[in-house]
Order: sequence, then structure tokens, then C-alpha cells
Amino acid sequence: MSLAPLRDDLPSCLEPYLPQPPSAHSDRPFVTVTWAQSLDARISKGPGIRTAISHPETKTMTHYLRYHHAGILIGTGTLLADNPGLNCKWVPQNGDRRTPKPVVMDLSQKWRFEGSQMWELYKKGTGKPPIVIVLGEPKARETGVGYLIVDDPSVKWDTLLRRLRSEFRLDSMMIEGGGRIINDVLMEAGLVDSIVVTIGSTILGKNGVEVSPMHSLTLKHIRWWTGTTDAIMCAQPDV
Amino acid sequence: MSLAPLRDDLPSCLEPYLPQPPSAHSDRPFVTVTWAQSLDARISKGPGIRTAISHPETKTMTHYLRYHHAGILIGTGTLLADNPGLNCKWVPQNGDRRTPKPVVMDLSQKWRFEGSQMWELYKKGTGKPPIVIVLGEPKARETGVGYLIVDDPSVKWDTLLRRLRSEFRLDSMMIEGGGRIINDVLMEAGLVDSIVVTIGSTILGKNGVEVSPMHSLTLKHIRWWTGTTDAIMCAQPDV
Ligand SMILES: NC(=O)c1ccc[n+]([C@@H]2O[C@H](COP(=O)([O-])OP(=O)(O)OC[C@H]3O[C@@H](n4cnc5c(N)ncnc54)[C@H](OP(=O)(O)O)[C@@H]3O)[C@@H](O)[C@H]2O)c1
Ligand SMILES: NC(=O)c1ccc[n+]([C@@H]2O[C@H](COP(=O)([O-])OP(=O)(O)OC[C@H]3O[C@@H](n4cnc5c(N)ncnc54)[C@H](OP(=O)(O)O)[C@@H]3O)[C@@H](O)[C@H]2O)c1
Repeated sequence: MSLAPLRDDLPSCLEPYLPQPPSAHSDRPFVTVTWAQSLDARISKGPGIRTAISHPETKTMTHYLRYHHAGILIGTGTLLADNPGLNCKWVPQNGDRRTPKPVVMDLSQKWRFEGSQMWELYKKGTGKPPIVIVLGEPKARETGVGYLIVDDPSVKWDTLLRRLRSEFRLDSMMIEGGGRIINDVLMEAGLVDSIVVTIGSTILGKNGVEVSPMHSLTLKHIRWWTGTTDAIMCAQPDV
Repeated sequence: MSLAPLRDDLPSCLEPYLPQPPSAHSDRPFVTVTWAQSLDARISKGPGIRTAISHPETKTMTHYLRYHHAGILIGTGTLLADNPGLNCKWVPQNGDRRTPKPVVMDLSQKWRFEGSQMWELYKKGTGKPPIVIVLGEPKARETGVGYLIVDDPSVKWDTLLRRLRSEFRLDSMMIEGGGRIINDVLMEAGLVDSIVVTIGSTILGKNGVEVSPMHSLTLKHIRWWTGTTDAIMCAQPDV
């Protein structure tokens, strides 16, 4: 599946929200949280249901963001629901391909790399093998996979992200979902550098998986972009 | 409190979503549903908490919409939480003032007009007295107030709106809240003509009053406007 072209005005709109050079964030990665939601803040019709929300042009924007990050993180819920590829399909004019390192939060080890879409893309040479965050020793170590082992299920995101930087040299992370991960990450003060949200022109209804964290959050440096049917809001947490 | 100026590009943006001449909707009013929400689809921080969401320029947009509607409807939750004035403060260049007729859904008769902000505005000549939708005979008939009496608490919105047109000659209605009313109205097929939503640049969190109806809803004729900090989405239900 090929991507729709990147809208001309997106790079300059996104520029202030893209990862800064590593020096500025010496011991933790630059963190972008990004998701596509309906008007009613649902990212899927229900738990485990993959739901189309974005217009092709905002989907391309997501790949453009992936291009600019060293790693991309998602949770087990998303892994099992969507079997995502997590690679970057956007290629700049100069042909300089890049694709982020997938990081999957799979504490209870429900997922296997082999046979997954990520694995297919890795075999084809268009995606990287993932780092899997697991609780305790991995049940089976899969070829190509990196493991970040934690011994506490309530490990802080700050700790995880610092370890991703120090052990795997990921100096920018894009957190793409799902609902539980995003709501959790948004609540850890000082953790998130940029927020980039696509709002699709649909209402998914009460039973959908929602992005709405436990408490309120003030945003600053707001910038809106609007496309054919979707809008994008870029912001920074005002901490 | 005076209004911020209306942004120049708003009238043409809103034009296709404004009430059409009555002939086209012979026995029910033209219905616009409108609200201001946070990114996470919350219209207040919690039940009964009046919450500032809109930028002054989108607040002015709401008054511009009020200007174009014969009536404006809200529920008891909003009445008791916000003590709203429901008048129109926007005045066109030609000085032709108009203000909509407030309609309040107060089936269990918890609210009194006297002493309310609506009453203050009526006394000052800048607002109209309301029509109150009540279940059974009004406990006390207040001066100036019109009553729309229903005998079934699960009366359909279609019936209510047709009665507002036939008994009170309201040929366009703007439904402004709160959460329960909006979620309810969005689910009655064929009822809503236009949807105009302001999205403020804040996240209010899980405990807020949310707009997310029971089921999904497809939207068509999408149009976005963006301002200093807020966006506005205009749409029509795709029924
Ligand atoms: N529209 C979009 O942008 C978008 C993007 C991604 C996903 N989605 C949708 O989101 C849905 C999945 O969301 P979800 O909320 O069910 O799952 P999720 O956020 O992807 O994963 C949550 C899972 O991560 C694990 N976890 C362990 N420790 C955690 C911690 N400290 N914080 C958070 N999670 C932790 C838990 O798994 P264990 O129970 O194994 O410990 C938890 O069930 C799917 O329907 C998917 O389609 C949409
Ligand atoms: N940001 C915005 O645009 C905006 C606009 C308006 C309100 N708000 C906020 O919304 C909150 C209030 O929302 P809410 O959901 O609590 O209350 P609401 O929607 O204003 O009122 C709901 C009430 O209406 C009555 N009702 C009777 N029959 C109904 C029916 N068939 N369908 C729906 N309602 C019916 C019920 O009252 P009885 O129990 O008396 O029968 C019900 O409690 C407040 O915090 C307010 O600040 C925000």
C-alpha cells in the first residue's frame, strides 16, 4: 500500500514539535505522544477493534513523524488488536530512507514477533525487529528481538524511557498508543515534550477506547492544521 | 462583559450550516447542535462545574450562531450548574439586535426563572423569558414564562421539536447542552441538521462531562476553522 503525498504545509507546521538534538535531553529521549481520535476522543470503536479514523493525508503525516523518531512505542492492547507494522513508509525527495525501532510494551508476554506484520516487514527489509519490554526473564528469546527486562509491573515511564536511551541509544521516542498507554504517559509530569493529535471527522461513541487521562492537563504552544476532513493539533504540556 | 470581535472569516465558514428558510422544514424546526469541548471531548470538568473552554473569539462565534436561531435549548443539568443567560450579545453592523427564545428542559421542575440570570437579562431588556418543558402541570406558573407540558418523561425529541414549532413558532433551534441532552439528541436519526463544535486547547480528563453518544455517527460536509487556540468543526450527520 503506497502513501498519499505529504501535504506541503505540514513540515513547517510540525517543525517546532519534532525531536530536538539529543544534547538538550541528555539522559532521557525526546518524547512525542501521538494518536488519531474521533471528535469524541475515541481511538477505536472498542477494545481490540482496529478502526479507520485518519484521512490518507493525515496517515502520511504519521509516517513523516515516524521518520523523525528513533523509536516508536505501543502497548499489548494495540499489538494484539492491530498487528501493526510500525515502520516508516515516508521517504524524502533525496531517497534517504529511515525507519524507527519498534518498542512494544508486553509485560505479560502475550505476543510473538515471529509471524507478526513487524516480522514480515523485517524479512522484507522494510522494518526493524522490536525491543520488547517484559516483566522478568523472557519465556523464549526470539531472533533479532531486543529485551528490556523490568522486575516491577508498576515501573515508571521515566525509568523505562531513560533505559531505552541508555541501553538502546534511542534518543527520541514516539508513543503511538493505545488508550491505556497514552492516558498513563500523559499523566507523568515532565515526561512528554510534544503532543500531535489527528482529529478525524467521525463520532465513534461511548463504547470506544478513549484518550482522556485521569486528570486535566493544560496545553501550550498550540498549533492547528486542517486538511480535507481531519484536523491536527500540535501542542506541548504546560508543566 | 463585552464580546471579542467576530473573526472575519467565520460568517462564510458557517454559512452552509446556518438555518435554512422555514419552508424547507415545514413541520419541525431546523436543528443545530453545538457545544465547546476539550480535546478529550469533555464539556466541563465534572457534573455541575462551569468550565471555561473557549477562547473569546469562539465564544463570539456562539453568539453569532445564537443570532441566527429562533430558539436555544438546554437541560436542567446546565441550568443548575451554569445559571446561563442564553441571550445573544452579538450585534451586526446595521444594529439589528436579535436574541433567541430560551427553552429549558426541566421535566422535574427544579428550576425557577425568578432570580436567575435569564430573569435579570429579561428585566434589563436584553433577553427573553423562557419556555420551560415540564412533566405534568407546572407547580407554579411564573410571569412571562411559557410552558410546554409533556405527560411522558420519555417523550421523543422529534415530538418536542415539532411542538416548539407549532405551539411557539420556533422555526430554528440551537441545542447548546449539556452532555446528556447532546448525547441524546445526536442519537435520534434525522433530527439534527447541523453540528458546530468548538475544540478548545485543553484536556479536561476522565471525570469531566463528556459528549460521546451511545453509538457511532458518521459525519459529512466537514469544514474546519482554526483560530488562535481553538478549532471549530462544522458538519452534518450522514443519515
Ligand atoms: N487511533 C490510534 O491512533 C490508535 C493507536 C494505537 C492503538 N489504537 C487502538 O487502541 C486500542 C488498544 O488500546 P488499549 O488501551 O486497549 O491498549 P494499549 O494501551 O495498547 O496497551 C495496554 C496494555 O499495556 C500493558 N501495560 C503494562 N503496563 C502498563 C502500564 N504501566 N501502563 C499502560 N499499559 C501497561 C497492559 O498489558 P498487560 O495486561 O499485558 O499487562 C495493558 O493492557 C486498540 O483498539 C487499537 O486499535 C488506536
Ligand atoms: N461546554 C459547553 O458547551 C457546555 C454547554 C452546556 C453545558 N455544559 C456543561 O454540561 C454540564 C451539564 O450537563 P449534564 O449532562 O449534567 O446535564 P444537561 O444535559 O444539561 O441536563 C440533563 C438533564 O435534563 C433532564 N432530562 C429530562 N429528560 C431528558 C431526556 N430525554 N434527555 C436528556 N435529558 C433529559 C434530566 O433532568 P431531570 O433529572 O430533572 O429529569 C437530566 O438530568 C454542566 O457541567 C455544564 O457546565 C457545557
